[in-house]
Amino acid sequence: MRTRPLKVALLGCGVVGSEVARIMTTHADDLAARIGAPVELAGVAVRRPSKVRAGIDPALVTTDATALVKRGDIDVVVEVIGGIEPARTLITTAFEHGASVVSANKALLAQDGAALHAAAQDHDADLYYEAAVAGAIPLIRPLRESLAGDKVNRVLGIVNGTTNFILDKMDSTGAGYQEALDEATALGYAEADPTADVEGFDAAAKAAILAGIAFHTRVRLDDVYREGMTEVTAADFASARAMGCTIKLLAICERAADGGSVTARVHPAMIPLSHPLASVRGAYNAVFVESDAAGQLMFYGPGAGGAPTASAVLGDLVAVCRNKLSGATGPGDSAYARLPVSSMGEVVTRYHISLDVADKPGVLAQVATVFAEHGVSIDTVRQQGRQDGGGDASLVVVTHRASDASLTGTVEALRNLDTVRGVASIMRVEGE
Amino acid sequence: MRTRPLKVALLGCGVVGSEVARIMTTHADDLAARIGAPVELAGVAVRRPSKVRAGIDPALVTTDATALVKRGDIDVVVEVIGGIEPARTLITTAFEHGASVVSANKALLAQDGAALHAAAQDHDADLYYEAAVAGAIPLIRPLRESLAGDKVNRVLGIVNGTTNFILDKMDSTGAGYQEALDEATALGYAEADPTADVEGFDAAAKAAILAGIAFHTRVRLDDVYREGMTEVTAADFASARAMGCTIKLLAICERAADGGSVTARVHPAMIPLSHPLASVRGAYNAVFVESDAAGQLMFYGPGAGGAPTASAVLGDLVAVCRNKLSGATGPGDSAYARLPVSSMGEVVTRYHISLDVADKPGVLAQVATVFAEHGVSIDTVRQQGRQDGGGDASLVVVTHRASDASLTGTVEALRNLDTVRGVASIMRVEGE
Ligand SMILES: NC(=O)c1ccc[n+]([C@@H]2O[C@H](COP(=O)([O-])OP(=O)(O)OC[C@H]3O[C@@H](n4cnc5c(N)ncnc54)[C@H](OP(=O)(O)O)[C@@H]3O)[C@@H](O)[C@H]2O)c1
Ligand SMILES: NC(=O)c1ccc[n+]([C@@H]2O[C@H](COP(=O)([O-])OP(=O)(O)OC[C@H]3O[C@@H](n4cnc5c(N)ncnc54)[C@H](OP(=O)(O)O)[C@@H]3O)[C@@H](O)[C@H]2O)c1
Repeated sequence: MRTRPLKVALLGCGVVGSEVARIMTTHADDLAARIGAPVELAGVAVRRPSKVRAGIDPALVTTDATALVKRGDIDVVVEVIGGIEPARTLITTAFEHGASVVSANKALLAQDGAALHAAAQDHDADLYYEAAVAGAIPLIRPLRESLAGDKVNRVLGIVNGTTNFILDKMDSTGAGYQEALDEATALGYAEADPTADVEGFDAAAKAAILAGIAFHTRVRLDDVYREGMTEVTAADFASARAMGCTIKLLAICERAADGGSVTARVHPAMIPLSHPLASVRGAYNAVFVESDAAGQLMFYGPGAGGAPTASAVLGDLVAVCRNKLSGATGPGDSAYARLPVSSMGEVVTRYHISLDVADKPGVLAQVATVFAEHGVSIDTVRQQGRQDGGGDASLVVVTHRASDASLTGTVEALRNLDTVRGVASIMRVEGE
Repeated sequence: MRTRPLKVALLGCGVVGSEVARIMTTHADDLAARIGAPVELAGVAVRRPSKVRAGIDPALVTTDATALVKRGDIDVVVEVIGGIEPARTLITTAFEHGASVVSANKALLAQDGAALHAAAQDHDADLYYEAAVAGAIPLIRPLRESLAGDKVNRVLGIVNGTTNFILDKMDSTGAGYQEALDEATALGYAEADPTADVEGFDAAAKAAILAGIAFHTRVRLDDVYREGMTEVTAADFASARAMGCTIKLLAICERAADGGSVTARVHPAMIPLSHPLASVRGAYNAVFVESDAAGQLMFYGPGAGGAPTASAVLGDLVAVCRNKLSGATGPGDSAYARLPVSSMGEVVTRYHISLDVADKPGVLAQVATVFAEHGVSIDTVRQQGRQDGGGDASLVVVTHRASDASLTGTVEALRNLDTVRGVASIMRVEGE
C-alpha cells in the first residue's frame, strides 16, 4: 500500500457533503485498504465559513473554491454544491489542474454532460456521478459496465422520491394532491418550493442522463418530454384501481421497436399492481431495466438523503482514486451510437381516457368512430351514468398501443364532438 | 479505436457459452465501440467436437482446451465449462500465459477463489465472475465497486431460481414439495438430479462468494451453514401465512452486531409478506443488501438461463478488455478485513417452532420454563387443540431474537419433556 495519501477537495458541505466528510473520517482505514492508499481531506469549500461543522477541521474550510481546485496537489475533487454555476466552472478548472471529479449534480450533468465529459477526456481525468441518479442505488455503474455487453431497450424508473411519496400517500389514503404534498413538506420529503420535483424537472434531468448511458447516445435535457404530477387526482387513482393499476411518476427511456431511434420522457402513468415498480413505497426509488440478453432487472433503494447519496459518492471516490493510482481512467462517456432522439409524438404506448359525455344513445358510436379515424384501436370501454343525475355520463376508454401523435389527434377531435362535454383525464398506461 | 482485435478463447459452448458466442457475433460492432477495439473469438473448446453449433465457425472448435489457453496470443479466456477440473487448471494456465479470465463458475470460485485471485494477481491479470452469482443481476460489481465506500452489514438473497420456483409453487397452489419439484423438473427449472439446488449447495457457494466480497474477508465454503428446503411442508406455508409471512430459501451473510465477526448461511426462512424479497416470483432471483450509509438496496432479475448469464459474462468481458487496453487491472480480491467467520450457533435470529404437545393444563407453563431457562424469550404463543381429537394439541411459539445455540439447547430440552410429543417444525424468521 502506498503511504502518500491521495488528496481530496470537497466542494460543498451541506446535506451530502457533510456525510461524505464524516464517512471519509470514520471509515478512513477501510477506504485506504480498498483504494490501496490513504485518502486525505485536503480542503472543504463552502459559502458560510463561520458555520460550525462537526468533525471538520476549521483550518480546511475555505470560501475560495476556485483557489482550492487550482492548488495543483488535489487528486480528486468531489463536487456536492449543486446547480450550474459555479459548479461547472469549478469542475472544468479541476480537470485543467490534473484532478478527477466525482459529482452528485444531476442538473449540471443533464445540461452539460457532453462538454464536461469532453473536458475530462482532454485531461485524461475521470468524471463519475453515480449519486446524480437515484441516490444510493447503483445504477450508472451497472448500466455503463455490467450491461456493457448487452443491448438495453427500456429503462422505466421511479427516480424522484418526493413525488413517489406524494403519489403513494394519495394511493394509500385517498388524499388529494395538495393534502399529500402538505404532508410531504411537513415531513421534510418536499422542499418549500417543490416545483423541481412535482413538475418533473428533477426526473427529466435523470431521464436524460439514463437515456444517454443506456443507449450510448447524446440525449439533451430538451429532448426529454416532461409532464408533472400536480394534476393527478383521487379520481385518477380510483380509475387506476378499477384497472388493477396504481399511478407513478415515471422516467421512461425507450428504444423504438425498429431500434433506429430512442425517446425519453417523464410523466405520471398507470402501471399494473403486479409490476415490481408498483410496490415501491414512500420516498424509495427503483429503476426497471429491460435488455436483450439479461431480460428484466430492477434496482431498488433510497433515492436521496445525505448518507445514501454519500454512499454513492464514496463508491465513485474509491474507483476514481484506484484509477489515479493505476494511471488509467474508467469507462467514460459513450455516445458512439448517435441514435436520433424522437419527439413525444412518436412514442407508442397505451392510454386511459376519461370523457364526460351526454347520456344519450349513439354517443359511444360517435366516440368510437373518432378513435377509428385516427387509427387508435380501443381495448376496453366502460360507460357509466353519473352520480349527480345531470343527464351526463362518463366514458372510460382504454386503448391498444398507439402513437402519442395519433392520441393527441384523437383527443382534439373528441373535444369537437358536441356530445363530449369534456376530457376529464388522459393517462398513459405503462409496464405491461 | 485500435484496429488489432483482442482475442478471446471460449472454454465451453453449452447453455451459457453458446449465448456468449452468439452475442459476440451479433453485437460485434457495439462491443468494439464500447471496448475501444474489436474482439475476436479465437477458439472454442468443447467436449464433443462433432456437435453442430449454430453460428460457430467449425475451424475454431477444439477439444484441446489446454492448448488453446497456452497459445500465447489469447487476451481473455472465458471459462463456461463449470465444475472444478479441468476449469481450475485451465484458468491458472490462462493466467500463466498472459490472459485475463472471465468465469461463471460459482462452484470453483467458492471453493478456490482465494488461490485463483492470488494467481491472477501474480500475473497482473483480471479475474471477473459477475455471472457466478445471481446470473444476469449486477451484484458483484455493485458490491465490490459501488459500495466500496460503504460498510455492508447484511446480504439477504434469493440466489437459486430452482428452489424459488418450487417454494413459490407450494405457496401459491398449496402443493407439497414433491409435486412442486416434479413441475419444476417438467418445465426445465430443475435438473434431473436436483440435489445441488434443493439441498442448498448452489446457494451456499454463492453465499460464500457474496460474504467474502461484502465483508472483505475470506469466507470458505465450509464456513457456510447449509440447510436444504426438501423438508418444507404445506403446513409450514400455512403457519407462515398465519404470521403474515411466506417461506424462501435464503442466503444470508451478516456482520455481527458488534462488527467483530461475520456469518454466512443458507436455509429456508419465513419472511414477512411486506418484505421486498417476499414478492420475488418463479425462478427470479433477488438480493437485498443493507449497509451503513446506503441503507436498504435490492437487486432483482433472472438468476440463470443462457442469455441472462451471457449478459453478465459479456459485461465482464468488456471490462476486462478495457483493462487490457489501458494496462490496468480492475479491483481484485479484497480480504484485508480478515474478520473471523462465526459458526451457526452464534447467529442471532428469531424462530418459529411448532410443537405437538399433550392437551392438558400446565403444558404451556412447562414449555415456557424451558425457553426461559435457555435465555430464549418468547414473543407469541398460539395453542390449538388438534383436529383429530386425540388428546394432543399443537403449540406454536415465535421467539424474540436469540442465538442459534440457545435455540438448539431449548429444542433439545423440549424433546425431553414428556408432555412434548414431538417438534413438528423449526423455522427461522428473517427480514424484519
Ligand atoms: N440531498 C440529497 O438528498 C441529494 C441526493 C442526490 C443528489 N444530490 C445532489 O447533491 C448536490 C448537493 O446537494 P445537498 O443537498 O448536499 O445541497 P446543500 O445541503 O444545499 O449543500 C450545498 C453546499 O454547497 C455549499 N455552497 C453553495 N454555494 C457555494 C459556493 N458558491 N462555493 C462553495 N460552496 C458553496 C454550501 O455551503 P454552506 O454550507 O456554507 O451553505 C453547502 O455546504 C446537489 O447537486 C444535489 O442535486 C443531493
Ligand atoms: N446455465 C445457467 O443458467 C447458468 C447460470 C449461471 C452460471 N452458470 C455457470 O456457467 C457455467 C456453464 O454452465 P452451462 O449451463 O453453460 O453448462 P453446459 O450447458 O453443461 O455447458 C458446458 C460446456 O462445457 C463443455 N465442456 C465440458 N467439459 C469440457 C472439457 N473438459 N473441455 C472443454 N469443454 C468442456 C461442454 O462441451 P459439449 O458442448 O461438447 O458438451 C459444454 O459446451 C457453469 O459454471 C455454471 O455453473 C450457468
